[in-house]
Amino acid sequence: MSGYFVTFEGGEGAGKTSVLQKVSSRLKQAGYDVVTTREPGGIEIAEKIRNIILDPAHTAMDARTEALLYAAARRQHLVEKVFPALESNKIVLCDRFIDSSLAYQGYARGLGIEEVYQMNQFAIDQAMPDVTLFFDIKPEDGLKRIAANQNREQNRLDLEKLSFHEEVYQAYQLLINRFPDRIKCVDATPVLEEVVDSTYQILQAKIESNRFS
Amino acid sequence: MSGYFVTFEGGEGAGKTSVLQKVSSRLKQAGYDVVTTREPGGIEIAEKIRNIILDPAHTAMDARTEALLYAAARRQHLVEKVFPALESNKIVLCDRFIDSSLAYQGYARGLGIEEVYQMNQFAIDQAMPDVTLFFDIKPEDGLKRIAANQNREQNRLDLEKLSFHEEVYQAYQLLINRFPDRIKCVDATPVLEEVVDSTYQILQAKIESNRFS
Repeated sequence: MSGYFVTFEGGEGAGKTSVLQKVSSRLKQAGYDVVTTREPGGIEIAEKIRNIILDPAHTAMDARTEALLYAAARRQHLVEKVFPALESNKIVLCDRFIDSSLAYQGYARGLGIEEVYQMNQFAIDQAMPDVTLFFDIKPEDGLKRIAANQNREQNRLDLEKLSFHEEVYQAYQLLINRFPDRIKCVDATPVLEEVVDSTYQILQAKIESNRFS
Repeated sequence: MSGYFVTFEGGEGAGKTSVLQKVSSRLKQAGYDVVTTREPGGIEIAEKIRNIILDPAHTAMDARTEALLYAAARRQHLVEKVFPALESNKIVLCDRFIDSSLAYQGYARGLGIEEVYQMNQFAIDQAMPDVTLFFDIKPEDGLKRIAANQNREQNRLDLEKLSFHEEVYQAYQLLINRFPDRIKCVDATPVLEEVVDSTYQILQAKIESNRFS
């Protein structure tokens, strides 16, 4: 596949979703062909799988069942949305991907990063991101940012204890060490426009060096 | 876990479902504590996952998505039904399990036995069956048996081409070679009562030797 697959990762309140939208606009203005997405991405089968995961009646759901369901939804989203875009030479910006499963389920929920990684290899079948941007902010600062943002609805994860978010942060540090070539850190502490600037610069350089490699 | 986990495997028309019921009755008469089941086994989450797999509207479902969904349903069925029974020292007889995924999806559908096996390890987390009985009958003879049985409704797999069923048969031969200690062959060509007799003898010997091991 000849497109370029970029994933955005980070803890809660890192601002990655806002940055993704703004960077996408700038890349488009610069003439790049960009698709933005996030799992389950409006894919019918993936949405139905997600509904099973999120149904509050399913209190008995085992953590491994959940991880397998996320991987199934991931696979279908890849096949129906990401792969066709990459095959059409597009740049795909995806809000969260495999590293979120590794950080949240593999590490913070205790299933094991390595086990969740291996299982997800079946789902992605070698389609690892070309580059992953990690938006780096201390968990307590991210949570403060969410609390200050009146426009953002709090979700289930926002309400987890600080210690959980700290584990997620530790997990991302482990992942950065494990995948140093793929994962690039972006300082997420400045104001939004600054984070967008630095993200755009990293990404544009990556895309251009990929084009001529 | 101290129970005993038995799975029944084979192609279409091998008679394994009928044998399972009759062997279960005999084991109970002999005083054993037996539970019979099959995936998804009435487990609500697993049934919902199965509904997604079987929905005829989902023509776009990728083979890997399907395999992940089967593994998710398998996990939940294990956690809610099989593990509790094994923990209560019961003998669990399960109609089809991991080897069906390996034969049908791994081999006949071409995903790769090894890949489907590794992915399923995440789902079963070391809970491989203590013994697996393979009911051995040539695919064409199994299909003739189904065609002659007026009481049995034909399902989607019965209608696959003979060549597909032959691939499933080949896959089981590969699995028998790979797991010689776990998988035992039962000649499924004689009349039902004879197959039940030989199955009972194999199983009773296995259970007793396990008890004193």
